[in-house]
Amino acid sequence: MTTLTPTPRIKKHVDPPDSPHSVGWTESKTICLFTDHNPFELELGGKISPVHVEYETYGKLSLNQDNVVLITHALSGDAHAAGWDKNAEDTGRNWRTRKPGWWDAVIGPGKAIDTNKYYVVCMNFLGSCYGTTGPSSIDPKTNKPYGLNFPMVTVGDWVRLQAKFLDALHIDSVHTVVGGSLGGQQVIEWAMAYPDRVENCIVLAATPRLSAQGLAFNAVGRNCIMNDPHFNNGDYYDGPPLSAGLAAARMLAHITYLSDDSMHKKFGRRLHEREEKERGFGIEFEVESYLDYQGRAFVARFDANSYLYITRAMDYYDAAARWGNGDLLKACQRIQSNLMIVSFESDWLYPPNECKDFAFALTKIGKTVTYVNIPSKFGHDAFLVETEQVGKLLKSVLK
Amino acid sequence: MTTLTPTPRIKKHVDPPDSPHSVGWTESKTICLFTDHNPFELELGGKISPVHVEYETYGKLSLNQDNVVLITHALSGDAHAAGWDKNAEDTGRNWRTRKPGWWDAVIGPGKAIDTNKYYVVCMNFLGSCYGTTGPSSIDPKTNKPYGLNFPMVTVGDWVRLQAKFLDALHIDSVHTVVGGSLGGQQVIEWAMAYPDRVENCIVLAATPRLSAQGLAFNAVGRNCIMNDPHFNNGDYYDGPPLSAGLAAARMLAHITYLSDDSMHKKFGRRLHEREEKERGFGIEFEVESYLDYQGRAFVARFDANSYLYITRAMDYYDAAARWGNGDLLKACQRIQSNLMIVSFESDWLYPPNECKDFAFALTKIGKTVTYVNIPSKFGHDAFLVETEQVGKLLKSVLK
Repeated sequence: MTTLTPTPRIKKHVDPPDSPHSVGWTESKTICLFTDHNPFELELGGKISPVHVEYETYGKLSLNQDNVVLITHALSGDAHAAGWDKNAEDTGRNWRTRKPGWWDAVIGPGKAIDTNKYYVVCMNFLGSCYGTTGPSSIDPKTNKPYGLNFPMVTVGDWVRLQAKFLDALHIDSVHTVVGGSLGGQQVIEWAMAYPDRVENCIVLAATPRLSAQGLAFNAVGRNCIMNDPHFNNGDYYDGPPLSAGLAAARMLAHITYLSDDSMHKKFGRRLHEREEKERGFGIEFEVESYLDYQGRAFVARFDANSYLYITRAMDYYDAAARWGNGDLLKACQRIQSNLMIVSFESDWLYPPNECKDFAFALTKIGKTVTYVNIPSKFGHDAFLVETEQVGKLLKSVLK
Repeated sequence: MTTLTPTPRIKKHVDPPDSPHSVGWTESKTICLFTDHNPFELELGGKISPVHVEYETYGKLSLNQDNVVLITHALSGDAHAAGWDKNAEDTGRNWRTRKPGWWDAVIGPGKAIDTNKYYVVCMNFLGSCYGTTGPSSIDPKTNKPYGLNFPMVTVGDWVRLQAKFLDALHIDSVHTVVGGSLGGQQVIEWAMAYPDRVENCIVLAATPRLSAQGLAFNAVGRNCIMNDPHFNNGDYYDGPPLSAGLAAARMLAHITYLSDDSMHKKFGRRLHEREEKERGFGIEFEVESYLDYQGRAFVARFDANSYLYITRAMDYYDAAARWGNGDLLKACQRIQSNLMIVSFESDWLYPPNECKDFAFALTKIGKTVTYVNIPSKFGHDAFLVETEQVGKLLKSVLK
């Protein structure tokens, strides 16, 4: 359990900050919404105030405000979608590193989401640890981090908060909402919750609800975190660092992001190069080294409580239950925007057949939908990896 | 995390002990092999003595000893393959419960493995916690359980020990060796290690080596165990019971034993019935309750150190590396017995396409092989669930 090989998870194309295609150095901003007299009321019954929302924007808002592209991020994502973060530091419990945006490959001047044309907005969602209020934020009532006193949040809450944020900026309508994975579920929620505020919705690698297998993986991950000896019922911010449980949860999740085939090609059964060759229970195979690295890296950059809240929101989301009393067709009736649904052949977390079922449900009731299944080997990660193919599809909507 | 629903993992057909098709009450026996002067030498370099081997037999050995059927068990299996265990008790660290044999549906008078005709032998493998010497056994040198001082064991060691055991019983040749999953890998090893001692080999739901994804799941499971606060480097037998880590490992493994489809049909997104309806991080979905039960049940019946050793043996096994310097065709050249390879359509732990590749390798060099892919929805568990179809195939070999 010693050697650390920094195998990058995904080789992303990233333009240097001075490239004409990069949005350059970026600075995330924070807006404070809601007050004690007017708190944010949550879907499952809690209330919270104030709510700080961290966000980034790229490009310029047009005079008639018809060029807004809203990016919704996935489980461990943040508001920093493109360019180079000016202020991020790699210290302490700041959870952040100075790194290029997670979707830099498609956002920038002349890129698929062209910041010369569009005003791109990305907000960190409620419950995360990247600037927006979350369990690691200070609860003004106790002057201590919320921990598990943080209220339960949902995909519906995230989207409603995004809408409130746009209200605050006096932006009425959105040209396109786009996101992948848990970000894609937010796009589905946008289409159903605010049918008259969004023109185009692009859902990547996401379905209207998580499968039983997905629920199961999330349950095991949370189990690992809550059984960590330092968890202390979520009140661990002043104690010894929580590591093993969160690392195990991330290792497990990582397996579900890759396909069997991509793992085979990337690692196979190759042995990890190391000094001591003794057999035992340490790191012997390359794939073990990779997972170990991913687990450790995640511990340094993510809050375990956030992981609990976010995976639970992922579990709960069920568009049909929320908008159609369990009937997906009824829920889909609400949709007025054009939908594009993109699945990836080897994705087994949000499998293509379920994405296709969603698209078929929409066509059945005469909605405008484009469904594309990309024949990728990269599993669920494909939505971040297949930037060329995804970029082409984005361009077809943002032409 | 409270309610315990005893959802049975698999509804097995089990004859009551007085049925004419049951082998009835059984009593496992133990044989002691090897001495300090002549220890069992292990593939990876260790030595061990004495070695107690727990086994059960059903039926009668024919005079010319041509009716031996050897059953090889899977990860958490034991020697008690059929009938009703007379002596098992549900107490303390005995790891055992009074229960019908794990393959009772196919072993018995008039059943697929007909004990009126065949002498059926099943041994618990080295490193397990069900009677054969393992990490929870007392090390005679220290008078304490071996713990992590137990030597590393391999599938090759298990098969060699089985052969030594048959030597001790003066049994030269075996009519059929049959097993599923890790038991199927032992069958492959039998075919290559003792080509002239076995006539028929039946491999269920197993491949000549585990995939990168399989290695990854095992690594996370072991990680959970070794990070349990009570693990104490494997020396936990006198301390507080090890539970959370082993339970998490089992929960995770269980997901890999079922198919996405069978989980969907069995649980879907149904909520677990419970008194408190508050949302949070406890058990809310049926699938969470099921995994929780499986985790807890496993903790009561299995030793965490055994789990480490056995999953590592599963990782290491690579028939091509062992018998063909990495060349599967070369390794297959050794085989003289008839082979039957059975895969199950929805098995993603030992996927059908890899089983088929193994069968094709055998046909390519002119070996006698029957390959059957059973269109089951039960995932890897199918090898235990699809007893009717598996029974027919067994009968075709044991006619």
